[in-house]
Amino acid sequence: MKQNWKPCAMVNPVPAVLMSCGDAPENYNMLTIAWTGTICSEPPMAYVSIRPERHSYEIIKRTGEFVINLTNEALAEATDWCGVRSGRNFDKFKECGLTPEKSSVVMAPSIAEAPISIECRVTQIVPLGSHDMFIGEVVNVAVDEQYLDPETGKLDLAKAKLITYAHGAYYALGEQLGTFGWTVKGSKLRKEIKHGRQKK
Amino acid sequence: MKQNWKPCAMVNPVPAVLMSCGDAPENYNMLTIAWTGTICSEPPMAYVSIRPERHSYEIIKRTGEFVINLTNEALAEATDWCGVRSGRNFDKFKECGLTPEKSSVVMAPSIAEAPISIECRVTQIVPLGSHDMFIGEVVNVAVDEQYLDPETGKLDLAKAKLITYAHGAYYALGEQLGTFGWTVKGSKLRKEIKHGRQKK
Repeated sequence: MKQNWKPCAMVNPVPAVLMSCGDAPENYNMLTIAWTGTICSEPPMAYVSIRPERHSYEIIKRTGEFVINLTNEALAEATDWCGVRSGRNFDKFKECGLTPEKSSVVMAPSIAEAPISIECRVTQIVPLGSHDMFIGEVVNVAVDEQYLDPETGKLDLAKAKLITYAHGAYYALGEQLGTFGWTVKGSKLRKEIKHGRQKK
Repeated sequence: MKQNWKPCAMVNPVPAVLMSCGDAPENYNMLTIAWTGTICSEPPMAYVSIRPERHSYEIIKRTGEFVINLTNEALAEATDWCGVRSGRNFDKFKECGLTPEKSSVVMAPSIAEAPISIECRVTQIVPLGSHDMFIGEVVNVAVDEQYLDPETGKLDLAKAKLITYAHGAYYALGEQLGTFGWTVKGSKLRKEIKHGRQKK
């Protein structure tokens, strides 16, 4: 039985990324964002939704750039802290002991310690209410080499120990339940047939 | 050291929801969506990005409604299967043994077995390339009572055992690393002071 609640933001779990922005060291900033995700595969596009009162809002509006840095267990504390403190009052890179790293395509810095940095250029700003959605085209993806297989170059993202955010708490990723398409592949196909899902 | 990759969809981990749609039992459908999230808190708004060639695309375009159903470990197999099969060829509710449940506000069905169903009404469709983004205002949130504290009514979402999706695999949520704001609250404040983050 379900209970009806009034409308609220309830998509869970969501990413908890550290977005970095700025076009010169003196205005570099980081902001923790959970209202983020992929919105298109080709061309690859992502979004971040930001309240106009946040310090980063004006920076991104002016520069038209942001970087989505994925976060992991080692960055969990910085991720939380950068979500509750403002770049107006703190040099967040310095306070968190993180390193602004020159990005490849955009002027906005990447976070050196992040496993993956996704450079984005704003193509559209959609005002929605409490938040404006910044739609960005992905212009570069930088991947920490320690997560790449030295032989094949394949990314083993499980090694990065990414974190996620659900209903007010940060979580490590747990057990892997299956890879995309597992229910119709190989040995698991038997299960599908057993469940009557196989169709001619 | 980071290696530059060509632009790609790399925000991780992301939700893996079962979206339900349709306005009559004969056209009810479910589709697994990872390109989803919250885009605004007030009013609460969410999005789903869908390829025009997907069976659900025309249904949502015509009806202007969709339901985001959160998924958990018990729904992991259905979540995978509904992402690789089409509603053109299968009655997905029947094949997965799931129950279309009357929603509270929209005509689109909710999934009875999902821990939370988020009813949305489309306010805007943004064509982006491979995917169109359907922006929806949340018009109702239905929460399975088994995750509510009978005394306080408080939602304990950890009990729902939600799942997430990262780089081609589904994961259970693991250890809780901290709650929102933990780095500046209570006992953890000491840590902040120790790290020199406290500011007058």
